[in-house]
Amino acid sequence: MEGNKFEKTTLNTVRRRPDRGIYDKETIASIIKEAKVMHVAFVDTEGLPQCIPMLGVWDEDETGQCYLYFHGYPTTRIMNNLSDPGTPIVATATLVDGLVLALSAFSHSMNYRSAVVHGVVLPVSEEEKKAGFQKVVEGIAPGRWENSRQPDEGERQGTGILRIKVETASAKVRTGPPKDDKKDMENKELASKTWTGVIPLRTVPGVPEPTSYTTVPTPAHVSALATAPHGA
Amino acid sequence: MEGNKFEKTTLNTVRRRPDRGIYDKETIASIIKEAKVMHVAFVDTEGLPQCIPMLGVWDEDETGQCYLYFHGYPTTRIMNNLSDPGTPIVATATLVDGLVLALSAFSHSMNYRSAVVHGVVLPVSEEEKKAGFQKVVEGIAPGRWENSRQPDEGERQGTGILRIKVETASAKVRTGPPKDDKKDMENKELASKTWTGVIPLRTVPGVPEPTSYTTVPTPAHVSALATAPHGA
Repeated sequence: MEGNKFEKTTLNTVRRRPDRGIYDKETIASIIKEAKVMHVAFVDTEGLPQCIPMLGVWDEDETGQCYLYFHGYPTTRIMNNLSDPGTPIVATATLVDGLVLALSAFSHSMNYRSAVVHGVVLPVSEEEKKAGFQKVVEGIAPGRWENSRQPDEGERQGTGILRIKVETASAKVRTGPPKDDKKDMENKELASKTWTGVIPLRTVPGVPEPTSYTTVPTPAHVSALATAPHGA
Repeated sequence: MEGNKFEKTTLNTVRRRPDRGIYDKETIASIIKEAKVMHVAFVDTEGLPQCIPMLGVWDEDETGQCYLYFHGYPTTRIMNNLSDPGTPIVATATLVDGLVLALSAFSHSMNYRSAVVHGVVLPVSEEEKKAGFQKVVEGIAPGRWENSRQPDEGERQGTGILRIKVETASAKVRTGPPKDDKKDMENKELASKTWTGVIPLRTVPGVPEPTSYTTVPTPAHVSALATAPHGA
């Protein structure tokens, strides 16, 4: 880590299309925040790859060290597999921003933002678990920790928190129109029959749907969630 | 495989919340089609987990055997790591459908649809590679194969196709409102101050954005893409 950027290493360097590689913490954190779900991959006890979608939040301490927090049920396979501190994992968040249609089938692409984080499982004390639970809830739905019943002892025991020490990370972003070959663009016949451009995709929140037993009007923190950017 | 469902095995059985587990091919295929991007995880040559977002399509042959196809540049790390037939991979697609806000912090959840596919890398003949390239383009953007310039020899060589034999798969789906504890719902003070419900999330296509060199009006296959369901 150098200031707000991750150093490029063998693990995190974007090699294919290095112009799309981004290493600053702010971009990486914003992609993870918007995606909410990360795909957590690890090697299981049989040596097989596993990849599970989990709610993930990014955190940074006062020294600049970054962490990921995930929550899950303490008895699931992933929690069992990841109970050993030091186990390496990789967690990836991806937002799809559009389909990119080009003159040639080969140049078709997608606009996207993705973040890949490499880290290791940390031990979690009771205090850190409690703090981690709060970070996950607040990271996904800001305002809910104070605006809901806080966990009792049984619920705290019924929640597993994965705390990951981030070792390195990078983002990769593509934006804009197709990049067609010059020779295709100069081919008048091809250009005259082939529509090219972008189909933008955006994840939008709908109108909040209260439960039948909700008696309070929509509070500010819920309205904010219903307008915040949400990739998926 | 039994008819249109995958048999439950140690690898694919949904153990936490088994009521949310779905094993039929149609549900699994529909989630992958809507997500477009799958997270492909594998164990690299150092024994570390890797997880890369890739465009993925699902396919089934006349015997009922299912496949995943991914495309990538032939010289990337993932293509090098996955060039050996038999290498096990897991590919996961996830759609986020809503934030579920409950009375207790513990009962907060998410509405989602996810599909996890376990498979092995197959060898790819030149013929299968050509067919795979077409399947990826058509799977992501139906109609583009015929409506764009088809690959020349150099482009075919510049494209890597991963062909995965699906060994097992499952989906997991959560829908509906929060499931609050009875004791919380009977707690009038809590219910009177805590908004509960769902913030639905939906990925919507925007108006197609033609390039500056497009001279044809929006064709039917592009309009169809601009209205199809697209998770992200």
